[in-house]
Amino acid sequence: IVSSHDAWSGWLIVSGVGILSGLCAGLIDIGTEWMTDLRLGVCPQRFWLNKKACCWSSNLTTADNDCPEWLSWSQIFGIMSSSASIFAFEYFVYVLVSFLLGFLAAVLVRDLAPYACGSGIPEIKTILSGFVIRSYLGKWVLLIKSLTMMMVVSAGLSLGKEGPLVHVASCCGNMLCRLFPKYRQNEVKKREILSAAAAAGVSVAFGAPIGGILFSLEEVVSYYFPLKTMWRSFFSALMAAIVLSYINPYGNGHLVRFEVSYDMVWHLFELIPFIVLGIFGGLYGAFFIKFNIMWSNFRKNSALKRFPVAEVVVVTVVTALLSYLNPYTKENTSSLIRHLFQQCDQSDSTPLCNYINNGTYVINTNDRANFPTLPAGPQVLRSLWLLALAMLLKAFVTIFTFGIKIPAGLFIPSMAVGACFGRILGVAMEQWYYYNPDTFFFKLACHPGRVCVQPGLYSMVGAAATLGGVTKMTVSLVVIMFELTGGLQYIVPIMFAVMTSKWVGDAFVEGGIYDGHIRLNGYPFLDSKEEVKFTANASEIMQPRKPTILVTINYNGNTVGSLLELMQECPYQGYPLVYSSESQQLIGFITRKDLKHRLDFALETNSNITVESKVYFSDKIPAQHDPSPLLLKEIVDLTPLQVTLETSFDTVLDIFRMLGTRKVLVIHKGRVMGLITKKDILRHIAASTDQDPGAIQFH
Amino acid sequence: IVSSHDAWSGWLIVSGVGILSGLCAGLIDIGTEWMTDLRLGVCPQRFWLNKKACCWSSNLTTADNDCPEWLSWSQIFGIMSSSASIFAFEYFVYVLVSFLLGFLAAVLVRDLAPYACGSGIPEIKTILSGFVIRSYLGKWVLLIKSLTMMMVVSAGLSLGKEGPLVHVASCCGNMLCRLFPKYRQNEVKKREILSAAAAAGVSVAFGAPIGGILFSLEEVVSYYFPLKTMWRSFFSALMAAIVLSYINPYGNGHLVRFEVSYDMVWHLFELIPFIVLGIFGGLYGAFFIKFNIMWSNFRKNSALKRFPVAEVVVVTVVTALLSYLNPYTKENTSSLIRHLFQQCDQSDSTPLCNYINNGTYVINTNDRANFPTLPAGPQVLRSLWLLALAMLLKAFVTIFTFGIKIPAGLFIPSMAVGACFGRILGVAMEQWYYYNPDTFFFKLACHPGRVCVQPGLYSMVGAAATLGGVTKMTVSLVVIMFELTGGLQYIVPIMFAVMTSKWVGDAFVEGGIYDGHIRLNGYPFLDSKEEVKFTANASEIMQPRKPTILVTINYNGNTVGSLLELMQECPYQGYPLVYSSESQQLIGFITRKDLKHRLDFALETNSNITVESKVYFSDKIPAQHDPSPLLLKEIVDLTPLQVTLETSFDTVLDIFRMLGTRKVLVIHKGRVMGLITKKDILRHIAASTDQDPGAIQFH
Repeated sequence: IVSSHDAWSGWLIVSGVGILSGLCAGLIDIGTEWMTDLRLGVCPQRFWLNKKACCWSSNLTTADNDCPEWLSWSQIFGIMSSSASIFAFEYFVYVLVSFLLGFLAAVLVRDLAPYACGSGIPEIKTILSGFVIRSYLGKWVLLIKSLTMMMVVSAGLSLGKEGPLVHVASCCGNMLCRLFPKYRQNEVKKREILSAAAAAGVSVAFGAPIGGILFSLEEVVSYYFPLKTMWRSFFSALMAAIVLSYINPYGNGHLVRFEVSYDMVWHLFELIPFIVLGIFGGLYGAFFIKFNIMWSNFRKNSALKRFPVAEVVVVTVVTALLSYLNPYTKENTSSLIRHLFQQCDQSDSTPLCNYINNGTYVINTNDRANFPTLPAGPQVLRSLWLLALAMLLKAFVTIFTFGIKIPAGLFIPSMAVGACFGRILGVAMEQWYYYNPDTFFFKLACHPGRVCVQPGLYSMVGAAATLGGVTKMTVSLVVIMFELTGGLQYIVPIMFAVMTSKWVGDAFVEGGIYDGHIRLNGYPFLDSKEEVKFTANASEIMQPRKPTILVTINYNGNTVGSLLELMQECPYQGYPLVYSSESQQLIGFITRKDLKHRLDFALETNSNITVESKVYFSDKIPAQHDPSPLLLKEIVDLTPLQVTLETSFDTVLDIFRMLGTRKVLVIHKGRVMGLITKKDILRHIAASTDQDPGAIQFH
Repeated sequence: IVSSHDAWSGWLIVSGVGILSGLCAGLIDIGTEWMTDLRLGVCPQRFWLNKKACCWSSNLTTADNDCPEWLSWSQIFGIMSSSASIFAFEYFVYVLVSFLLGFLAAVLVRDLAPYACGSGIPEIKTILSGFVIRSYLGKWVLLIKSLTMMMVVSAGLSLGKEGPLVHVASCCGNMLCRLFPKYRQNEVKKREILSAAAAAGVSVAFGAPIGGILFSLEEVVSYYFPLKTMWRSFFSALMAAIVLSYINPYGNGHLVRFEVSYDMVWHLFELIPFIVLGIFGGLYGAFFIKFNIMWSNFRKNSALKRFPVAEVVVVTVVTALLSYLNPYTKENTSSLIRHLFQQCDQSDSTPLCNYINNGTYVINTNDRANFPTLPAGPQVLRSLWLLALAMLLKAFVTIFTFGIKIPAGLFIPSMAVGACFGRILGVAMEQWYYYNPDTFFFKLACHPGRVCVQPGLYSMVGAAATLGGVTKMTVSLVVIMFELTGGLQYIVPIMFAVMTSKWVGDAFVEGGIYDGHIRLNGYPFLDSKEEVKFTANASEIMQPRKPTILVTINYNGNTVGSLLELMQECPYQGYPLVYSSESQQLIGFITRKDLKHRLDFALETNSNITVESKVYFSDKIPAQHDPSPLLLKEIVDLTPLQVTLETSFDTVLDIFRMLGTRKVLVIHKGRVMGLITKKDILRHIAASTDQDPGAIQFH
């Protein structure tokens, strides 16, 4: 029964994680929609309803239009005099509500849960690589992060809630681990649950369970991913997706969030514009990473870091002021992306779909492929200009937004930039085809009278490319995009764009934005993806270097006093235990922490033990003793890994990465010569890659 | 340029692997269809066309019906006298052609490429875990395997070509590696390509690129799967899928092979029958593994192994004789599965869809969900009996088929068993609903007048469950099923069934069929999935045990003669090099192979070297010498990994698994005490899991 309970508890936790994450995501989605609409107006009769729900009972079918139940702020305050004053008043309320939401969120984060800020992915990567950041995954963080996420997204800041959802799901996982002693006490087991939680987070963020596992595998966990974890992650991700689809926050009953309904083939010649999109994505990614890291560095090293709330407020107000003027930035970013991914059909009356149709074409939903290419109307051109402005706004504002002290993901803003660019390029290609259908590649590939170029697809590919450029994700990104849009047949274009984007981006900046922030914050993270050529061997990275001699503890002849003295004189993290200081033959390893703790404890609690007491690291003690001896056999780690002086750095690195060990002893001809810790490894990597070794933090 | 060529060569190879695999798969598919139809008749005007292509030009629209261009064997030989004689003659030709194909395939495999037999997956797993099976991936194997695969599938044997396609793709990968020195010489790099090739193989086998990566990750590579490999695998898998879809062997222009078109929700109560399917799958898997391994063991240890061709012929003839009598086994297994996955609509006149419709319901393809549940006609019942017989036939015959000396995969036969069972259960549920719509769970979930239970879905879930039971795949299976059928919304039912199946199966048999065959053949494979609790430590598994003393080579004082003598007296695989035999302080490690090779070479080619020549393992040689000395510094591995006597077996196992090392030296107090090789590890695992340690082969 115990063993089956053991096996079940894992499944129980991962299903719990899935269900909880799904619930959190659903609540956050609903809350966000409500708060977002709050900037425009309110439902006076039932204030807890958002615009869509408020207008549901109304007779008007489209939710985009206003309905009498829903009142804008100017209607509520009776400002009806002129359209200018209505505009000014609504503008004012829009900025005001944004300001309040941003301010409140920043204060909550600062005072209640400072760890709730940022996307959380760099930290989770670090935690999963084996380090402990205390209370980073606590229940307060969960609560505050969920709450403030709704606020900041509603405040119209250029950020997404997708990255933070991974953090939220991880918090759920951590909380559930506390209920089971097996998982509470075992860090390795807990990490298994956390990787499942990361998968669940992505699953609810994008409705992408398979993408979730791959994300967890590619981006978060990086190296060590046992298969059992994969299966559990999948289960967790799926549970989360199901719960979310039952809550149904997007109101379409599907998991697929930005569903694309065009069922068209893409043409081989289109790979060229797709590669252009990839290049754009790579360049944008490099630009974004470079400037965001630069600005984050500035924030860290200037007076700015003392005013986190003020910074949030300034960014919020500036974003709101600028966003209101452009319809594409005024609406929330998710809707913008959904809109840009869609194809135009004749029922679509938005400016972006203002095509000139002289009435000859009759709409038929079953006949999409035969929809002819039409010339763009004047409003399309205007929309493209607005889209270009929106793109620039998002691109610049996000640099200053990602890193301020509120929850902030960057999937959605990154995608928005690419979606805008892609749509512009797509419309350009489409009109090129309309005006020059005889250009040779159009002539080869397109059928006259049918749509040949689909601007929505370009938008989708562009979004994938920019996201790829920023995060440097690969397989998981392609799978997420495909699950996000349901467009299985567009895997190839997306893949080409993502690949190009990664290659172009890597030429300018190594690693993605998360790696950049890990490095910036000096988290001790061994990146498994970095492929640096190291030529050093163990003798060059071990401590101590010549002429310093390794401090060891002899097997015999120690007293409590001598050990205390040794620890004071040589404040290292641990000491090899050797047979004698002449032979330096290794017996085991003792950490400073254990030794200090045991000596202090013995001195305090046992009055027979004095500084003169002999210390033995074995069971065999001479018969008579005064003062009574101290036995410390159990603090000796008898199984340290050993390498030789000539072992290459790559091998040592693999030992640390793969076996999760914390130290390796260096032996030469049977003598202990030195030791290598994770710190030495990180320092060497930093030195080899031209980073400042001093910047690395150690926990 | 060199470094960019370096990076490009990897991409070049993986795209090459993808393209080649796609081509091979396409050719094999086309060849198989043609040969399969050859059992029934021929296209006299253009004999190289299969039935479908032959009838294409005909006016008849459905390919199922005969057309005048296509002649059955009885028509060709003019046997028209009575239906009994037609039947008998066609039966005879069917069995004869099967016999010829089977015989030819068996002879080709025996004489030209013995390695072409089986599915190849166990061997590829072993190769990827770091062992070399010479010429297992050669071009002859590729050629013969491709050719015989078409024959044996066409011969109607109960086997599939999906597993062998993985082997074929790996052969392509291996061949392309030979073109690039970087990959030819480096086993680790080559393994990266081979894992990409495995992904490409699954991708073409099932039209499932994402499933391919996950399969490669979960089933083939198991442990060490760098991210770069994942990205390349994906690319390779995608290229393969695209090439295959251009060749378009299924004629539907899609990658999706068993496309399901029903767009229906499943109901929560259906999880119970799905779990029943899972239990069935688990039981079938356990049954199959047990008896297949038992029979394979019998084959290995009896006279049977001397008559591989006769065995193939007997199995082929028996299968053909039995299969012809049942329409569901007469058609090829892939078509059977496709047929069972489909839902019935009114245009479907097959016996399985013989529902009683009194003419009130008018067909409308857009209105599938409103299709009412109809009572089953008499032919449905008969079909179910035939399906049950087909299931039993497949289940029994496959036990004797998998393991005979021809290419044989078992994905398709395993799926067929589950699909039959699932369909039977599905029809039973459907009719239960028709006759008792008031049963409480039906009443809760179903809408009257609409289809509530979908037998095709049950078939799909059943197929996944049996395949899961046999192979013990998890995530990759779910993803493959979803890519195979395009039914994203049925991930949850499939997942539940696969999970149940795995749990039930694991209660009876540990590991999947591939692990069983690896163990049976004694391949040295460290399974990363086995979670056995080991309590041993390094001292208990190292060689030599007390009182035998480790044979070492001293740093000084060796002559060619003394070393030759040592090798003769102590024929071990390698010898630790120590400072002196008293101190046993380790310097390095010398393998027997290197030492022998160098000594023999020196004696043969250099006349100054005699058995009296001193051997030095350093650069420093005393000034004068007679006879001239031999310097062997470069054969000393200066960087062996070292553990202590107390190191736990788990840690040692991790070192072998993760670092891919071949030996670990055991040190105690600075002295070399013994060494552990992969052999010792495997022997210990075998002993701990009640296997015969002697059965393990070593390469």
